[in-house]
Amino acid sequence: GCRAHSKDRGAGRTSALNHYRAAPMAIDVPFRSDRGFDALYGLEVTHASQELMRGRVTVRDELRQPAGLVHGGVYAAAAESLASTGTALAVLPEGKIAVGLSNQTSFLRPITEGTIHAEATVKHQGRTTWVWEVEISDDAGRLCVLTRVTVAVRDIPHLPGDARESV
Amino acid sequence: GCRAHSKDRGAGRTSALNHYRAAPMAIDVPFRSDRGFDALYGLEVTHASQELMRGRVTVRDELRQPAGLVHGGVYAAAAESLASTGTALAVLPEGKIAVGLSNQTSFLRPITEGTIHAEATVKHQGRTTWVWEVEISDDAGRLCVLTRVTVAVRDIPHLPGDARESV
Amino acid sequence: GCRAHSKDRGAGRTSALNHYRAAPMAIDVPFRSDRGFDALYGLEVTHASQELMRGRVTVRDELRQPAGLVHGGVYAAAAESLASTGTALAVLPEGKIAVGLSNQTSFLRPITEGTIHAEATVKHQGRTTWVWEVEISDDAGRLCVLTRVTVAVRDIPHLPGDARESV
Amino acid sequence: GCRAHSKDRGAGRTSALNHYRAAPMAIDVPFRSDRGFDALYGLEVTHASQELMRGRVTVRDELRQPAGLVHGGVYAAAAESLASTGTALAVLPEGKIAVGLSNQTSFLRPITEGTIHAEATVKHQGRTTWVWEVEISDDAGRLCVLTRVTVAVRDIPHLPGDARESV
Repeated sequence: GCRAHSKDRGAGRTSALNHYRAAPMAIDVPFRSDRGFDALYGLEVTHASQELMRGRVTVRDELRQPAGLVHGGVYAAAAESLASTGTALAVLPEGKIAVGLSNQTSFLRPITEGTIHAEATVKHQGRTTWVWEVEISDDAGRLCVLTRVTVAVRDIPHLPGDARESV
Repeated sequence: GCRAHSKDRGAGRTSALNHYRAAPMAIDVPFRSDRGFDALYGLEVTHASQELMRGRVTVRDELRQPAGLVHGGVYAAAAESLASTGTALAVLPEGKIAVGLSNQTSFLRPITEGTIHAEATVKHQGRTTWVWEVEISDDAGRLCVLTRVTVAVRDIPHLPGDARESV
Repeated sequence: GCRAHSKDRGAGRTSALNHYRAAPMAIDVPFRSDRGFDALYGLEVTHASQELMRGRVTVRDELRQPAGLVHGGVYAAAAESLASTGTALAVLPEGKIAVGLSNQTSFLRPITEGTIHAEATVKHQGRTTWVWEVEISDDAGRLCVLTRVTVAVRDIPHLPGDARESV
Repeated sequence: GCRAHSKDRGAGRTSALNHYRAAPMAIDVPFRSDRGFDALYGLEVTHASQELMRGRVTVRDELRQPAGLVHGGVYAAAAESLASTGTALAVLPEGKIAVGLSNQTSFLRPITEGTIHAEATVKHQGRTTWVWEVEISDDAGRLCVLTRVTVAVRDIPHLPGDARESV
């Protein structure tokens, strides 16, 4: 299987709510978004739970910076998607949403070809914030990037647009 | 004008060197890459110097995460490209390369439409590292994202592949 | 003048509340804590508002690491105190507390003697988080340290101990 | 045993070199500094190697912020000392020094009493930078703080003062 589905399919009252409900509450892996940024750069989620998320991205020329290395933004994007999705899996059923708060990425070793392997491990599942550590490796299993992603857990906004307020 | 050009066009001895020389030493703004990740997500550089870099990205559905907000990876990518390019402008003529070391992004307020405006200001121009603070705003001029990018300044590797070593 | 005072001196119902009320709601500068960590390392607050906090620390041998440079923890401490206090000035009167969420410090240039000058500028005053950028300089005015401090704004806990829960 | 010793006790040519040589090349644990910032806040190193450093700090009133929690600067200081010392253990014998480059601390859960337990695990041992992840826990074993410390590895400066240059 290869699609995301929500346990709560009730008709959203507003488009903003629909947007948030569009986030998956359960994922059949491997999963690839068919739209949005994850589809653009090519994230494939290969494991999904509240504690551990795994994904991969195939390196291609469109993901490189001018020197031929994978662009740092690709790593940051994959890390954030995994962390946010893992948090959403847990909090959406409780009527809350997951909103990225910060992303701290350290580049240790470049990746130039093959596949980017990302593994996100939850470190803190607090009431208002979740923290994930994401390790990104190359095909040889060498650690190439470390990312810490902090995700805010917030109430679903009551009115359209509220969810898009500042944190 | 709209192209990047290198002041040193000498035939690179190796493909690795070619890659690095491909990075611009001067930029005619506005500038858009025609390949690589910056082209994929759509960065347009509108001001380029060693002290200040500016760029913008037009929001479109391919840049959004499932909730309809611009994906955090887009901000991280734009910030890193501006900081790395600004550093490269200064150090490439000295025979050195700019390599991203870390990227610390804080999400303050989501952007959902219009244009992403990024401004990178250099804070430190050290011998081995440069540090840039990047502020990203929406069309209303509200600060939405803060990113600090640390760029390592390193000697150009002598042998192909060296440049891709770990930092 | 040199003391902190709270506009609300009502008898706290619990020791936890007392602790939080001990945080200043207004500050007569210059201000030095007479207890706690700020007193131990020697922070003097020289300007205090919700938008801008300034402070300084006199370098002495007890603040150095083995190589003779000021220890990185001193900078992190000063930055966090300034940011947390500046946030508390605004949110305590609204019945909320300020709790440090993250501290991202980059060391640009060591300080070995004289005075550490720290200036914290608020970048984001959100409903649930405030973000400050702190620049730390030496006596020659050279930028030596950059710190971004994120402060969570939370309701005062109803029961003793609640305030000390995880974020 | 309880003292740091250097394998190279040769008379340093300059005071700057002496400072750097004062950093331990081997440590008999448990180890407590008798001077400097680590002594002031009370770090005790309980395990020391290039891969894993452990330490602890006893909570006392002098380490608290106004709300009664351990001040964030204490965690940042302990994390940085462990990471820098662990790096120095490896690089000093090779004639290089370890200099803190950045410290990214996330506060997950406050500590108010007992002992602060810090464990630093090396994630990257590069030619020019080392990266450590530090986990700080309370007496109940709950994860309270995450810190990522990046340490620059640099040549020992040839002239007095050079080591104190900007990075």
